[in-house]
Amino acid sequence: MALIVQKFGGSSVADAASITRVAERIAETHRAGNEVVVVVSAMGDTTDELLDLAQAVSENPSGRELDMLLTSGERISMALLAMAIRNLGVEARSYTGSQAGMVTDEKHGSARIVEVSPNRVRAALDAGAVAIVAGFQGFNRGTGDITTLGRGGSDTTAVALAAALGADVCEIYTDVDGIFTADPRVVPSARKIDRVTSEEMLELAAAGAKVLYIRAVEYARRHGVTIHVRSSFSRNEGTLVVNPKEGETVEEPIITGIAADLSEDKITVVGVPDVPGTAARLFTIVANAGANIDMIVQNTSTSDTGVADISFTLPTSQAKSVLDALEARRADIGFESVQYDDQIGKIALVGAGMRTNTGVSAKFFTALSDAGINIEMISTSEIRISVVTRADIVNEAVRVIHHAFDLDGESEAVVYGGTGR
Amino acid sequence: MALIVQKFGGSSVADAASITRVAERIAETHRAGNEVVVVVSAMGDTTDELLDLAQAVSENPSGRELDMLLTSGERISMALLAMAIRNLGVEARSYTGSQAGMVTDEKHGSARIVEVSPNRVRAALDAGAVAIVAGFQGFNRGTGDITTLGRGGSDTTAVALAAALGADVCEIYTDVDGIFTADPRVVPSARKIDRVTSEEMLELAAAGAKVLYIRAVEYARRHGVTIHVRSSFSRNEGTLVVNPKEGETVEEPIITGIAADLSEDKITVVGVPDVPGTAARLFTIVANAGANIDMIVQNTSTSDTGVADISFTLPTSQAKSVLDALEARRADIGFESVQYDDQIGKIALVGAGMRTNTGVSAKFFTALSDAGINIEMISTSEIRISVVTRADIVNEAVRVIHHAFDLDGESEAVVYGGTGR
Repeated sequence: MALIVQKFGGSSVADAASITRVAERIAETHRAGNEVVVVVSAMGDTTDELLDLAQAVSENPSGRELDMLLTSGERISMALLAMAIRNLGVEARSYTGSQAGMVTDEKHGSARIVEVSPNRVRAALDAGAVAIVAGFQGFNRGTGDITTLGRGGSDTTAVALAAALGADVCEIYTDVDGIFTADPRVVPSARKIDRVTSEEMLELAAAGAKVLYIRAVEYARRHGVTIHVRSSFSRNEGTLVVNPKEGETVEEPIITGIAADLSEDKITVVGVPDVPGTAARLFTIVANAGANIDMIVQNTSTSDTGVADISFTLPTSQAKSVLDALEARRADIGFESVQYDDQIGKIALVGAGMRTNTGVSAKFFTALSDAGINIEMISTSEIRISVVTRADIVNEAVRVIHHAFDLDGESEAVVYGGTGR
Repeated sequence: MALIVQKFGGSSVADAASITRVAERIAETHRAGNEVVVVVSAMGDTTDELLDLAQAVSENPSGRELDMLLTSGERISMALLAMAIRNLGVEARSYTGSQAGMVTDEKHGSARIVEVSPNRVRAALDAGAVAIVAGFQGFNRGTGDITTLGRGGSDTTAVALAAALGADVCEIYTDVDGIFTADPRVVPSARKIDRVTSEEMLELAAAGAKVLYIRAVEYARRHGVTIHVRSSFSRNEGTLVVNPKEGETVEEPIITGIAADLSEDKITVVGVPDVPGTAARLFTIVANAGANIDMIVQNTSTSDTGVADISFTLPTSQAKSVLDALEARRADIGFESVQYDDQIGKIALVGAGMRTNTGVSAKFFTALSDAGINIEMISTSEIRISVVTRADIVNEAVRVIHHAFDLDGESEAVVYGGTGR
């Protein structure tokens, strides 16, 4: 008997028919002798519809009330799912975030989990029931208020529950078969990866792979939770995201996969005085504007001018506020100008085997060079090489690298739902 | 400074525009220097839509999960209302039933309030905020589960909060101007009643007046809460439902008003053995079938036959299960047959002044007799006379009585929203 946490997203419970289908899958897992905890998101577009209502009554909705509003979405889907499972003759009980013991800090809209005390979930399992838990939500003990975990919150709920309950695996159901060596829409010969370390998965997620949220993977790595990313449309095994123990050697391919990201822009601050502390002041301004910057490159200043150029990438949605914040402090910092480039793409090659294989960078850059692809920025970690190119050649670059590292599978990837995420 | 509880039903918060309008009214009451607690129902048809979803995934939804599902409706309306009030520059905080301390027993779907501990509501008021509380819902302390109060639950929530907080008045907003001497759709000259005792209101509600739920009035009477029934579409004073103290003499009209009810049917059990205990066994069967019976009439048994006929009225929706239950026990009890009549109507004349005015019954029956209206059953209390007639002459009977007791107002009643409730 295993304890399995299963997470289903909004598209898996979009209507009554989908809920019934998911219920059958859950009942099957339960009947096979497993203890099952299910984490569920709000139905389909519910969250967007609720947000529209909030905008209609308030120009700037309070975070506390917005969390109260949005958490009703999971309350609906989890109650319906519990009913549907019971209708199949399997006992099921639904629990809100607070009933499931998801204690968070008080930051409405993007709360962090500080404690998980799933006593009622454990009691439901002990009573032979399937426990359904609302994803995305928790509560703050000090204020007694309902909170939400923000983007990717339901994945994080699932992993956090799996950790607290000592689950054997946390299954994240999605509309594709698992994690692929590259986006199958871009590289039709991309292979499904059977097994990836959470470290590699973090790099892939950070580099634009959308199947799992970084925060959930981080939580899984910190707490040793095994994630199984699999399709809710098939019975195929998906991708296991594992946490090898210290010193444990696992035979694994040098390269895991390639991720690409077209959702970032580049900002270059030109003519920054080459004085100690200037970069720190610059990035404090950027951080205060609420931006998550990714790659940073500083051109070496020449002794002639005493100034340098600093480029960084950030999500498109955060560009405007950063540009405004920088412009407001130009005289203060003393730089010359700001350049904005929204036509960039990022490509990342990830693989734990890079650590011990010296030829990876050379092969990577040679392949791009042979294909005539110009590289504008470079950033590396122990297990990742990232580059920035023009946006319109990103897909070609992904194919070139995929081929250069012999990642092509024997058959074409099967992509469900047409989203290719 | 007064403490005012205001309750708004689903039609008052049916969409964003309605919510904004209600928010303005609440903000106005707050700005006038009052402490304001608002109880709100789910938006418009939300509850029905959620029930449809439940039926789509389950033939017989669990009460616990149904309560979890339905309570999301108030969560949505209360959060939106709080946002809308804040948007007008008035601080507002929303609270679920459990956050507001509405402790109930564990009977899902029709829980009874066992304790109200509105500490957080009181704290919100102390902080100068408007407190918005979800109507219709509470929680059970033993199970930790969410419960709902059933039909009319939001009125009960409002009255219970008013009692626990020691509010000056509990305003129930509706789509008519208050309680009328008769249904203005039937009697266009019906007058709005300025003041009614909770005792009279109970009789009117029990006799079919739909503006207030019996349970809320009972709670108000027990706890000395003054209810003000008024229109959300006008600023007119509505009807005060008061609780005169013991021995307090209030000058009041002999007759308060007339209620009629077409939603009940009559069942007659023919040839019941006139043996002690038979009626008790009969009504135990009826009660076990879940019926709320109202009027009961037993024909005197004649010494010749030793059998009697027993008639009673009950809501149409409960008739079938009672008929089935009686039929199943016919041989056991030893009665001859069961007759079912779904073409009856009930009319009730209510007035506390009846106690000390002896001519009321005579005038009542004379008026009906003069109009050629046949009476099939009679039931009376200290302050009420009820009769059953054919359904198709109920409206005529109401007009005849209304006129006989000089209840006609000087101008026609204004009915908003066309429902005439």
